[in-house]
Amino acid sequence: MNIAILGVGLIGGSVAIQLKDTQFCDLVYGIDRNEDNLNKALKIGFIDKKATLTEALAACKVIILTAPVDAIYSMLPDLLDQVTDQVVIDMGSTKQNILKLIEDHPNRGRYIAAHPMAGTEYSGPEAALKDLFKGKMMVYVAATQTDEDAFDLADSITERLEMRTSFMGAHEHDMHTAYVSHISHLTSFALALTVLEKEKSQGRIFELAGSGFESTVRLAKSSPDMWTPIFKQNRENVLEVLEEHIKQLTNLHTALADENYEELHRLIKKSNKIKRILK
Amino acid sequence: MNIAILGVGLIGGSVAIQLKDTQFCDLVYGIDRNEDNLNKALKIGFIDKKATLTEALAACKVIILTAPVDAIYSMLPDLLDQVTDQVVIDMGSTKQNILKLIEDHPNRGRYIAAHPMAGTEYSGPEAALKDLFKGKMMVYVAATQTDEDAFDLADSITERLEMRTSFMGAHEHDMHTAYVSHISHLTSFALALTVLEKEKSQGRIFELAGSGFESTVRLAKSSPDMWTPIFKQNRENVLEVLEEHIKQLTNLHTALADENYEELHRLIKKSNKIKRILK
Repeated sequence: MNIAILGVGLIGGSVAIQLKDTQFCDLVYGIDRNEDNLNKALKIGFIDKKATLTEALAACKVIILTAPVDAIYSMLPDLLDQVTDQVVIDMGSTKQNILKLIEDHPNRGRYIAAHPMAGTEYSGPEAALKDLFKGKMMVYVAATQTDEDAFDLADSITERLEMRTSFMGAHEHDMHTAYVSHISHLTSFALALTVLEKEKSQGRIFELAGSGFESTVRLAKSSPDMWTPIFKQNRENVLEVLEEHIKQLTNLHTALADENYEELHRLIKKSNKIKRILK
Repeated sequence: MNIAILGVGLIGGSVAIQLKDTQFCDLVYGIDRNEDNLNKALKIGFIDKKATLTEALAACKVIILTAPVDAIYSMLPDLLDQVTDQVVIDMGSTKQNILKLIEDHPNRGRYIAAHPMAGTEYSGPEAALKDLFKGKMMVYVAATQTDEDAFDLADSITERLEMRTSFMGAHEHDMHTAYVSHISHLTSFALALTVLEKEKSQGRIFELAGSGFESTVRLAKSSPDMWTPIFKQNRENVLEVLEEHIKQLTNLHTALADENYEELHRLIKKSNKIKRILK
């Protein structure tokens, strides 16, 4: 069986590496708007040949979508028009708008919305990693609307990636990812901007940057080409979480401005409850 | 030579472990308001005996202050009153108020303000680690006001901790730490509060928590007993940074609310410049 990876970056490359390593597929076809990335992917070796979408549909049983979410949104209806018995697995980070877009498509059953909760702050083909997905969660969204054979094939890929699985509705998925993933990125972007703003006048500021700073701001290395579309596709949920986050920061600010240290202590102690969730 | 550790937690314990390992000292005296922590420190073995401040001053050449910064602030004038030729090393995270408090003290020269830029999100004697300080930065603040022999002794401890060194004024130190350390903690506390707030109604939210979320929220495990005093002692700088951070988050919010994706992309791309600072 041949597979196609549409978007040969961190996620697509990491999937391809694992599917090749486990002999899941014969050939991997790479599709990407960026010719440089295709050449890099060929050189690294996780794709076997460059292809157009039409060529890939003719040769492959599985098309895995790992392009930025707005690109997936734009091309999915056309892609489904051309599908017969192939399986299209969408591994993007937002689902609600996309599912709505194709809910009445005659080939809806060949499409599966699957979000692997894994990644790094790096992007592009060179960022692809073996074992990126191992032990992480694959979230299937609105999975009951997918044909059984298509779901089974997608799930056998999830098994090869050694992932755990979870099932959610589209709204639930997009809201939860806003809370546990998208807001972390916004926070890091804002923190980086805050510190870079100050650094203009105070060049030595980074002598002091310790490991706490690094871990909090690490995600600010993430690609704007990937993240702008995510925020766009998940706009309402992200705005809601961002408003809550600004509110919580403002509460901390008010406690400190008012020299209400009892309240500040209480808020910090309350935030410590996150211990129970983290390892 | 005997040394005393006032505050037998993460920092004090980690210092003691290293000074024992390198045979820098004979006995380590532990001083702490918390009897449980003293017993734990004895059991772990990084202190040799429990002591009062008076006993420690009689028996030790070096007193290392690793208590919360408000405790250091409260007891420092009394401590300096009793000092003769001992060396008092303050390893707290804020310096400006404390230095102002003792600037005219006759024994000012026996005191050295040193801030090791190292730590973890854990606290207490069990959190103490060998090699916590290795390769990290020790910042000396207003070091020219310390007697030369006292500075040399403090610096020989810094060498045993295998740290690099940097010199700053008090204002510069407190402002820079607000930017690269204190704000990271506030951000994490607020992020934890944001997510915990939502979780009340949505129990499954943490199924999705990936590594990005974990690294951003990790600092929210930090102790309120340690951090409330830091924010109190560095209140003005922290308020300034927090205002800038809320402003940057608000800019991101405005761009998204206005569906101005060009601006959102520009802000994210600008934040990527943090790459140059991080490894």
